[in-house]
Amino acid sequence: MDIDEFVESVLSEINDYLKGSELVIESISHNSLKKITDLALPLEGMGYQTVLSDINHFLRYSVRTDHPGFMNPLWGGMNITAFLGEVIASLANNSMYTYELSPVATLIEQSLIRRMCEIVGFGDGNGTLTTGGSNGNMIGMLCARYRINPLGLRTGYDSKNLVCFVSEESHYSVRMSATVLGIGLDNLISVPCDVNGKMRPEKLTEEIEFAKLNGQIPFCVIATAGTTVRGAFDPIKEISEICTDNNLWLHVDAAWGGSCLFSAKHRHLMDGIELADSLCWDAHKMMGIPLVCSAFLAKDPDSLSKVYNFTDSANYLFHEETSEVDLGRFSLQCGRRNDALKLFLAWREKGDAGWAKLVESYMDLAEYLEQKIVESENLELMSSREWTNVCVRYNIEGQDLNELNSKIREQIRINGKYMVSRSTLNNAIILRPVIANHSISKDTIDGLVNEIVTVGNEIISGIPQK
Amino acid sequence: MDIDEFVESVLSEINDYLKGSELVIESISHNSLKKITDLALPLEGMGYQTVLSDINHFLRYSVRTDHPGFMNPLWGGMNITAFLGEVIASLANNSMYTYELSPVATLIEQSLIRRMCEIVGFGDGNGTLTTGGSNGNMIGMLCARYRINPLGLRTGYDSKNLVCFVSEESHYSVRMSATVLGIGLDNLISVPCDVNGKMRPEKLTEEIEFAKLNGQIPFCVIATAGTTVRGAFDPIKEISEICTDNNLWLHVDAAWGGSCLFSAKHRHLMDGIELADSLCWDAHKMMGIPLVCSAFLAKDPDSLSKVYNFTDSANYLFHEETSEVDLGRFSLQCGRRNDALKLFLAWREKGDAGWAKLVESYMDLAEYLEQKIVESENLELMSSREWTNVCVRYNIEGQDLNELNSKIREQIRINGKYMVSRSTLNNAIILRPVIANHSISKDTIDGLVNEIVTVGNEIISGIPQK
Repeated sequence: MDIDEFVESVLSEINDYLKGSELVIESISHNSLKKITDLALPLEGMGYQTVLSDINHFLRYSVRTDHPGFMNPLWGGMNITAFLGEVIASLANNSMYTYELSPVATLIEQSLIRRMCEIVGFGDGNGTLTTGGSNGNMIGMLCARYRINPLGLRTGYDSKNLVCFVSEESHYSVRMSATVLGIGLDNLISVPCDVNGKMRPEKLTEEIEFAKLNGQIPFCVIATAGTTVRGAFDPIKEISEICTDNNLWLHVDAAWGGSCLFSAKHRHLMDGIELADSLCWDAHKMMGIPLVCSAFLAKDPDSLSKVYNFTDSANYLFHEETSEVDLGRFSLQCGRRNDALKLFLAWREKGDAGWAKLVESYMDLAEYLEQKIVESENLELMSSREWTNVCVRYNIEGQDLNELNSKIREQIRINGKYMVSRSTLNNAIILRPVIANHSISKDTIDGLVNEIVTVGNEIISGIPQK
Repeated sequence: MDIDEFVESVLSEINDYLKGSELVIESISHNSLKKITDLALPLEGMGYQTVLSDINHFLRYSVRTDHPGFMNPLWGGMNITAFLGEVIASLANNSMYTYELSPVATLIEQSLIRRMCEIVGFGDGNGTLTTGGSNGNMIGMLCARYRINPLGLRTGYDSKNLVCFVSEESHYSVRMSATVLGIGLDNLISVPCDVNGKMRPEKLTEEIEFAKLNGQIPFCVIATAGTTVRGAFDPIKEISEICTDNNLWLHVDAAWGGSCLFSAKHRHLMDGIELADSLCWDAHKMMGIPLVCSAFLAKDPDSLSKVYNFTDSANYLFHEETSEVDLGRFSLQCGRRNDALKLFLAWREKGDAGWAKLVESYMDLAEYLEQKIVESENLELMSSREWTNVCVRYNIEGQDLNELNSKIREQIRINGKYMVSRSTLNNAIILRPVIANHSISKDTIDGLVNEIVTVGNEIISGIPQK
């Protein structure tokens, strides 16, 4: 097989894949998959024919994240424009550190950051594309620490007394950030939530006062706009007032919920966001851009260049003449992919109006799913719904519901028509389908509800499952 | 234009691009590019026809990193297999956090990490693909800090007294790492290099003793295998002995030089690497894999899971049953792209022997370039050559050589046939072509040498340039 044949065969494999598939996943055990996958990295090359079989095998046993039944994580679906944008970015293989090496891509990323800042209400804000929401939360914490002590950049920080506040339902990446920055997990204070999973402002005030009495130094609050399990939005306005009163940096983890800002109908969920100091917002979640496409935005345009002054030493990369346009000065990465193009192209195709429509259609579908659950005899809604996360379990008397729901979830996955997440809420195991995939329709939702009920009924009736 | 036409047109654009181009870059000023680039993110969608023009414009004004004249950064060239691997990974759009969502990709990444550990000499080692060498250096520093005080993860670190040692020619990302971890830039001790740019072990010993006398706590040494400007390799064996004597973690930044390990002829450059505690190694540099593809490897297989215990709180993502195979437990990212497939496929195609051949052919070409420079009347080799970096300047009496070489470099870029980096060595501005692009041949090198000399001659003769 020569290279032209190889390229042609791969393109035809891609075309076949884009035609879709009946199942989300061809279920196979870890052991079996290991047995049938040739993982050897050989001494001598095996050529294009082998690579083609590898690709075929990879696609066959991968989860079909473009399938309508894929309602598991906070992302999914196949946006063809964004996918092709990703392909073009790989083809050009630019690195985003200098304008010189990425002229068009730099202009595009700047345009995206500017527009996202406008939407947030950070008039003169600045920002950067990052490696994901986790990274964005870390950068927020980094800016917050710099603010209370800029000199620490040179002298080092004593982080035994710095405390940061997050809701008890925040994403685990805030724990990652505290670990990396050396803040210490004990200095990450969990603020209790109300019954809907939202941070309680009065509890935040209490915790801040308690920390101060303890001789600790509060420096940051991280609020969440769209929690992972319930999709709850912390009350940003009230939290921001507390931050102002206590001179604290407010970072908002809007990785999941940020896209509500496109919709006039739903942007109230993030009321007060313009009062925050920074946020992260993942375009690879609700906006359906291929992984990874995530923005960190700061209200003070100089936040990043102040903290990131380490780039000044890199005379082999950054030159004085282009200091205004070299995005590497605003990034924790040196070599960095062009994640901007795919989002830019999708935005050009859809416009703000297209994003708004997408968000609203997802909310409608989530409401529809909620209704279906409420109407279903054996299904129980496990949390109020604010965003497109739907927390549900199968409920019937006389059963260990945690065991039963774990079994139901696993069986649904094995059946292969749907895939939903398993989570824990107040020690109850729940299923959490989420709407973040543009191929989902009402029919998909009818099918999912039917699948959960049928599998549940069959398990409790002792009908053998495959 | 409907979606099928759109897809077809983009694929045909890709095919055209793959046919190559005469120039590395169609030179255009920042202002002009801004004027002719439509950067608007519109209210209403503009459809596929606009996106197609955007793609065309993007490719036209992007730097051709696959062009043989592209000898600027430590990466380049177009490995078709790896590029198609990237396309397939985007198509499947998996996230690497759980085995369940990325079954084949998980097995593939594990296989790569295992093989890279074997090559390094970390028999039972473990690791993860990261977002780049900068990130890998930070993770190394993180593991080092954990080792001197595991309890700090809970209580926070007092980083005012922690000191880390690097050579004065290390990459700026070690400064980034110190900033993020809160170590403080003053606590990053620069160890002097010898005339070839290699860290001097006796100076390292002195600095460690001095720090201890000062009441500081040394915790980490970061050696470099392949520095950015000269391609120098720090003497790992001698440094590792000093680390052992002083109970210090040794991390090696082998982002650029790691690939020498494939070649029996050149792997001596990293003699003693098996004595290090961790390293990073970029497959997107010399191995020509599209950006980003970078590994962090640690000798102690538990290094990462110990430092990363923050994942334990994420019951919505990680379940007990699959704790052994969920790669998210070893990563600072939550959502993470599949960067493994492209490297795996290229490795399957080429084999270890193919990588060795690549490394050796690059070294031969670098030697050829060095010879050409030595033989050329007006060119001066500015550093001894150990790897494929070649440091050169145009030298003639009675000229401001810094100004002249800056001009030469800029003029070469404008001419568009070659692109080389501009760096500073001992206050001298130099040109630094590097061999890291498989389309470079001896002809390319002849052409480059001729271009530097011609442009230099023309500038000093006052011949107007375009």
